[in-house]
Amino acid sequence: RAERVAHFEQDVWSIFTPLALECQAVNLGQGFMNFPPPDFVVEAAREALTRNDCNQYSHPKGRPRLRNALAKSYSPLFNRTLDPETEVVVTAGANEGIFSIFAGYLDRGSEVILMEPFFDQYISNITMNGGVPVYCPIRPTGDSSKDMPASEWKIDIKELESKITPRSKIIVLNTPHNPIGKVFSREELEEIGTLAIKHNLLIISDEVYDRLYFDPMKHQRIATLDGLWERTITVGSGGKTFGTTGWRIGWLIGPKTLVEPALAAHTRIVFCVNSPLQEAVAVGFEQADERGFFGSQIKAYEHKREKLLNVFRELGLPCTIPEGSYFILVNTDKIQVPEDYKFPDLLWKRPKDFRTCYWLTKEIGVCAIPPTEFYSKPNQALAENFARFAFCKTDETLDAAAERLLKLK
Amino acid sequence: RAERVAHFEQDVWSIFTPLALECQAVNLGQGFMNFPPPDFVVEAAREALTRNDCNQYSHPKGRPRLRNALAKSYSPLFNRTLDPETEVVVTAGANEGIFSIFAGYLDRGSEVILMEPFFDQYISNITMNGGVPVYCPIRPTGDSSKDMPASEWKIDIKELESKITPRSKIIVLNTPHNPIGKVFSREELEEIGTLAIKHNLLIISDEVYDRLYFDPMKHQRIATLDGLWERTITVGSGGKTFGTTGWRIGWLIGPKTLVEPALAAHTRIVFCVNSPLQEAVAVGFEQADERGFFGSQIKAYEHKREKLLNVFRELGLPCTIPEGSYFILVNTDKIQVPEDYKFPDLLWKRPKDFRTCYWLTKEIGVCAIPPTEFYSKPNQALAENFARFAFCKTDETLDAAAERLLKLK
Ligand SMILES: CSCCC(=O)C(=O)O
Ligand SMILES: CSCCC(=O)C(=O)O
Repeated sequence: RAERVAHFEQDVWSIFTPLALECQAVNLGQGFMNFPPPDFVVEAAREALTRNDCNQYSHPKGRPRLRNALAKSYSPLFNRTLDPETEVVVTAGANEGIFSIFAGYLDRGSEVILMEPFFDQYISNITMNGGVPVYCPIRPTGDSSKDMPASEWKIDIKELESKITPRSKIIVLNTPHNPIGKVFSREELEEIGTLAIKHNLLIISDEVYDRLYFDPMKHQRIATLDGLWERTITVGSGGKTFGTTGWRIGWLIGPKTLVEPALAAHTRIVFCVNSPLQEAVAVGFEQADERGFFGSQIKAYEHKREKLLNVFRELGLPCTIPEGSYFILVNTDKIQVPEDYKFPDLLWKRPKDFRTCYWLTKEIGVCAIPPTEFYSKPNQALAENFARFAFCKTDETLDAAAERLLKLK
Repeated sequence: RAERVAHFEQDVWSIFTPLALECQAVNLGQGFMNFPPPDFVVEAAREALTRNDCNQYSHPKGRPRLRNALAKSYSPLFNRTLDPETEVVVTAGANEGIFSIFAGYLDRGSEVILMEPFFDQYISNITMNGGVPVYCPIRPTGDSSKDMPASEWKIDIKELESKITPRSKIIVLNTPHNPIGKVFSREELEEIGTLAIKHNLLIISDEVYDRLYFDPMKHQRIATLDGLWERTITVGSGGKTFGTTGWRIGWLIGPKTLVEPALAAHTRIVFCVNSPLQEAVAVGFEQADERGFFGSQIKAYEHKREKLLNVFRELGLPCTIPEGSYFILVNTDKIQVPEDYKFPDLLWKRPKDFRTCYWLTKEIGVCAIPPTEFYSKPNQALAENFARFAFCKTDETLDAAAERLLKLK
């Protein structure tokens, strides 16, 4: 067993997704949809399967049709004409895209600045490539015993700068943010961007929830700010955009010279991405505007967000109100887990929120994710009193969850 | 740009596949099918897309249905009852599976023994994970100015043993072999296995062409030999098995403790494999036997092999007659490339077979792959006078290639 995988613990997904199934809990844990993707995208995939070229290898950088559709859809959002030949790379999910960036850039000891909480896979993606994660917390600045807009979770830019060393190579931004639901404001992006320029850092902007934000905050792209296109790779996700988390289609957008090292790594890791589903995502982008798809998807998620927020309001459990993504961080202080409850040994080795979420899954019948999984060990105390609930679920599922959660009253 | 990707040259696929398109050449280069996959497998994929759970994340180790189908189909071939829970892992193509094994096992300086020629992606998969490839040639022992059965390409087991050092961790076997088409005999596998046991090496047995062999040689599995299950991970490919190279479904089979480090790496690299096409490959295995699919596929490939061999016979170009896979290595000594032919500069930096294949693509209109891509630099001279032709193509395509190639007469 290589050193790079020696220290891996069981990840939160392979604990809680099977647990939810086993307990027949309503699963508001892992962020996947339990409703079908839009018909026109599914039909496009079914159609692609009847064309043989869609069943064979694609170019490592992605199928021309998908790269063209991405360039066309994203050019106005980036305020520039994206070149589909050199500035767009299709990856086997955003995850593999991010892994490939780290593989393309990190040498042993290279440091990567992460804002904490962070999507858990970042850590292994960095360390497997010899990198060292360095953490800067995003702190709730409001009163977390009350509902709080996600925008009140803030980084201290001085603290962020203090984490930068001569070994720092990359800073990772995630907006809309998982699990906070924060959409970074233009001013925040400018501050982060200024630091990146000053210290010559590459920015990975993980924007997989970029089509899922709620007014009045509007998703902003750091790559559109002055001087930042040149140092930013933006990451996107077909799974989040079209409700197809199992299709494993992601992409990288950035200047040719920046994406090249990631493409070089990606080509050797997976060679290419599955072809028929690339074709379907291309059709998704080609038709999304005329169908008003992104707008109606946001409306649907807004409704789901309200539905779930109302449950926690009724229970008097304070929430972070997400401005984007499909997650709600809930303060679980008031949830009374019986002191003599028998937890599996494994859970005593993990922070308190693992036990809260286990108990919620097993005894209340609603699965949530413990957010300390998204923190470095020293900072896990910051999140022990939270649980993350996903609302990318049918209304029926959210209603069933509500019914069960109201037993907590 | 990280050291691990700094030295990458443009790979042979992204030179020759676009070149073939551009020249409207008949493409016998990259090994993908230009005929559709079997209807029942395509239909299964189309059907899976209508079930929402097939559009969402799968378990990182693969969907239960596919793991069950693989265990059932492969158990008799491995002479043991495979446990689908712990002994089968689904990967994003065989390539990502092999990458993940290296990621799970290699530390900086770990050595991997490769038999040369080797599938070119092995090298970057090893070096990106800090490993060092060590080469042992497979040599044509017959008279290569005549047709030669692939079985006459042989390794010298003493030479192979001489390559083993205290840093050797893994030996890679590829049978049926790309590009030679050799199916290793039981005796050869026993010799290799004995070495692996003696020197405590992990064996990666890349058997992606395991359903594509021609009698009387029958594909043998090294993992079935005494004491070798315990140290072998066998790699398979849905793309090769069902003619769907663009679906990116591969798998690893081996003892729980051996596949675990690879699974740990795989989970962090891609998280999971696309779900709908896993489901379709599961159906493929479930129905293959009753439909007699593997047998009739072999017959079809046997016919294609003969068709293409006959062209080279008519031209008097000696061939290696493949016992498996869909490639023919052809001795190109007698092909006269005009001495004053103007090649792009790029090609003067590559061995002679790159120029032969370029000229064949451009002037004869048939694309082949230069096999020196499958050799380490010091040994490229062994392959400069060969070209690799793929016969996983429609009969019409093979006829069109024949017509053009006969201009060489
Ligand atoms: C890699 S698992 C799921 C990822 C995700 O969307 C989540 O945070 O739930
Ligand atoms: C990774 S590209 C194609 C692989 C293959 O099948 C070949 O050797 O042609």
